[in-house]
Amino acid sequence: MSNNLFHFGMIGLGTMGRNLLLNLADHGFSVIGFDKDEQKGAALLNESTPQHSVKAVSSLEAMVQQLEQPRKIMMLVPAGKPVDDVIESLLPLLQPGDIIIDGGNSFFEDTLRRTTYLQSKQLHFVGMGVSGGEKGARFGPSIMPGGDVAAWKNLQPLLEAVSAKVNGEPCVAYMGKDAAGHYVKMVHNGIEYAIMQLISEVYDVLKTGLGLTNSELHQVFKQWNEGQLKSFLIEITAQIFLQKDPDTGKDLVDVILDKAGSKGTGKWTSQEAMNLPISIPTIDIAVAFRDISVYKDERVAAANIFKPQRTPIAVNKTEFIGQLENALQAAIIICYAQGLAMLHKASSVYNMEIPLKDVVKIWRGGCIIRSVLLEDFYTAYQSNPDLSNILLNTQLAQLLQTKENALRQVIVQAVQHKIAVAGLMSALGYLDAYTNAQMPVNLIQAQRDYFGAHTYQRIDKPGIFHTQWD
Amino acid sequence: MSNNLFHFGMIGLGTMGRNLLLNLADHGFSVIGFDKDEQKGAALLNESTPQHSVKAVSSLEAMVQQLEQPRKIMMLVPAGKPVDDVIESLLPLLQPGDIIIDGGNSFFEDTLRRTTYLQSKQLHFVGMGVSGGEKGARFGPSIMPGGDVAAWKNLQPLLEAVSAKVNGEPCVAYMGKDAAGHYVKMVHNGIEYAIMQLISEVYDVLKTGLGLTNSELHQVFKQWNEGQLKSFLIEITAQIFLQKDPDTGKDLVDVILDKAGSKGTGKWTSQEAMNLPISIPTIDIAVAFRDISVYKDERVAAANIFKPQRTPIAVNKTEFIGQLENALQAAIIICYAQGLAMLHKASSVYNMEIPLKDVVKIWRGGCIIRSVLLEDFYTAYQSNPDLSNILLNTQLAQLLQTKENALRQVIVQAVQHKIAVAGLMSALGYLDAYTNAQMPVNLIQAQRDYFGAHTYQRIDKPGIFHTQWD
Repeated sequence: MSNNLFHFGMIGLGTMGRNLLLNLADHGFSVIGFDKDEQKGAALLNESTPQHSVKAVSSLEAMVQQLEQPRKIMMLVPAGKPVDDVIESLLPLLQPGDIIIDGGNSFFEDTLRRTTYLQSKQLHFVGMGVSGGEKGARFGPSIMPGGDVAAWKNLQPLLEAVSAKVNGEPCVAYMGKDAAGHYVKMVHNGIEYAIMQLISEVYDVLKTGLGLTNSELHQVFKQWNEGQLKSFLIEITAQIFLQKDPDTGKDLVDVILDKAGSKGTGKWTSQEAMNLPISIPTIDIAVAFRDISVYKDERVAAANIFKPQRTPIAVNKTEFIGQLENALQAAIIICYAQGLAMLHKASSVYNMEIPLKDVVKIWRGGCIIRSVLLEDFYTAYQSNPDLSNILLNTQLAQLLQTKENALRQVIVQAVQHKIAVAGLMSALGYLDAYTNAQMPVNLIQAQRDYFGAHTYQRIDKPGIFHTQWD
Repeated sequence: MSNNLFHFGMIGLGTMGRNLLLNLADHGFSVIGFDKDEQKGAALLNESTPQHSVKAVSSLEAMVQQLEQPRKIMMLVPAGKPVDDVIESLLPLLQPGDIIIDGGNSFFEDTLRRTTYLQSKQLHFVGMGVSGGEKGARFGPSIMPGGDVAAWKNLQPLLEAVSAKVNGEPCVAYMGKDAAGHYVKMVHNGIEYAIMQLISEVYDVLKTGLGLTNSELHQVFKQWNEGQLKSFLIEITAQIFLQKDPDTGKDLVDVILDKAGSKGTGKWTSQEAMNLPISIPTIDIAVAFRDISVYKDERVAAANIFKPQRTPIAVNKTEFIGQLENALQAAIIICYAQGLAMLHKASSVYNMEIPLKDVVKIWRGGCIIRSVLLEDFYTAYQSNPDLSNILLNTQLAQLLQTKENALRQVIVQAVQHKIAVAGLMSALGYLDAYTNAQMPVNLIQAQRDYFGAHTYQRIDKPGIFHTQWD
């Protein structure tokens, strides 16, 4: 710390903001945090060690004055209006060349607007995704900055220091122009929704179909996490089944209500994919099924009318659990394929120049969707950085084909036993459509032309055609 | 026609506008149409008969001056900016109390904005869905007006005269406040997308799985249209398989390219459902699969890598075709359930007071999704006008249960034979989730709380909880 000025400032000292500052302090950076709520500032100081150079203030002016120039100030406040409000409060305090970082889950169109606005004030703006939850923020998240290149260069040493590391390589890289950082984070979260949906379906098959206890469920997911499914989400799923509820003594998972919450990033991913357009049906299904879960009262009423009998699946348990492992991995690969294809398309539509190779590289560690699979994707993009869909990579196609039949068999069993596996089914549907050179969509075009004169293209010559149907 | 003034004016003399005017003229109304393109005006006159009182002009002023007051002027121009442009051109020409009708597929939020804007000018605005394609417009569409009640009362005799009739009852009714007309039409189109997707999947199973020729396909759909699947979309599907291509002599359906177009209303429905939120996965899948179809070159490349073998389905053909008929009907019922549940939710969220009983009543005839099923839905809403989901109606639940097993069997066959039936699967997934009192979403909530401290609810007491997971 030169001249008693701090390296880095943080606005918003919730758990994420506090933990990121402590992480920075661990790496020798002097940090200062601002929060209106003085208790949050006190918590920051409480959690810091004597080796840390950490300060907390409850005045924005005080924070800004104590930062070295160009100032590096990160916001971790709720997406939407709070971000704009903070920016407006900062403007009179900053000088040209200062850097504002939005580390929250802001909608990418807001980030675009703010980038332009702050450029007009000669300020640098970095829209930056941060994934890893509380622990990731504290000990090494995956960090997805985009936008201003000069600001990225300035921040690079600091972000590389605090990010997660895989094979000694930092899980942070420049994600592209404009709002690319928040765009990549949005799609990351969309993939996260889809994988969580798939895991919940497999849990349902194991629990309802095979009758596994929570202790057995723990064993299955723990074993899966030692194999090809190794990933953060499988790891915490295994742990979840061990957690007891102190109030009742029951397993905690069994007293949690089956109504899903959401913060909107999955929804944004699906809505935005439809604008591009590109097809991400498994993310769409994940959003739709969180939404259906909310209608609990209606579901109870419908269950009373339909009285579905969910009979046990009569199979060799060990063998079928092996099929489930392969089915889940197949579907997860397809989720990544959808999300990464979306980034490929968006990069071109919005001219963001998103380096997909770096995206999967920095997703290998720190973030919620980290998984051993990312290493395979990284290899695929190293051989073709402009790969439009990972399913077009021969090695990944071969990997998927070894698991495809398991996915079909699991779906067949679930369909026959009334277990809703819409995520698994959407992944298979995507695979069967994407690998189909001749979809039955010619009929849809015929129908559209028939009733609405919407025209069609032909297979044998270019042009737009309309028929006067008899 | 009193004082040589016309009853009704139309802006935009494309096929839909021309046909609606001719329909009005058939029913004794005097009509005047405006289009910048004089050829379109000439086409209107060409198609009119000596009994018609029809005029075409190429000046907006001329049209407005020749309309009786309060003027009734309908726009049928492309959605978006053209609608705003026409409104601005009209404003200096109109007088308080005049009625502007937007009969196009405008986005409901635009309609809301325009309603408020035109109220401030003391003008009546009616956002109105019109369905039925070119033929419907000419001989009887389904008409979905919403917004200004006084304007609706004024238009009612005229709209009832030209609308389709079922059992002598007109297929037009007041759809609710504000943008309800365009909202109902948007969801109508979403359901249309979903049913078309389902039909295309069944076509694929019949063609690829059972090896049916186009002539046999015609027979199957023709027969289905004489039974419980009787509907406009099944009827035209049967017809499509008869159409020859004059250029090649082949069946036209086989030379149409498998890339789907779209005008956006399906996309809007899906995006908007996620905002409400409500779950309409089969409409989402229909949108996603139109989008995947567009990536034809990638699909061809993926087919070359995966080389999927689509072997024939070895079943008793006649029996399996019977199962397909039941499966398709089950899935179609579920599509309507999703769309109508969306209208129920939207009506409450936006305070639109959409009369669902009248919605299904006027969808019985004239529109693209007309079907004998609508009569059953009408009965259901007559017994409970506030039914939140038609699957909660005992009669419909019973009907669905007689067909549910066929849906499962068809999906099992398609999954095993690599035919993408993601729409059928999403419908089944919706059914199995909606009738499930205990979804596996408790695990998703546990995961969210584990990595992001997003909290959860419990099954045994109210409140919001967070656990420090081990």
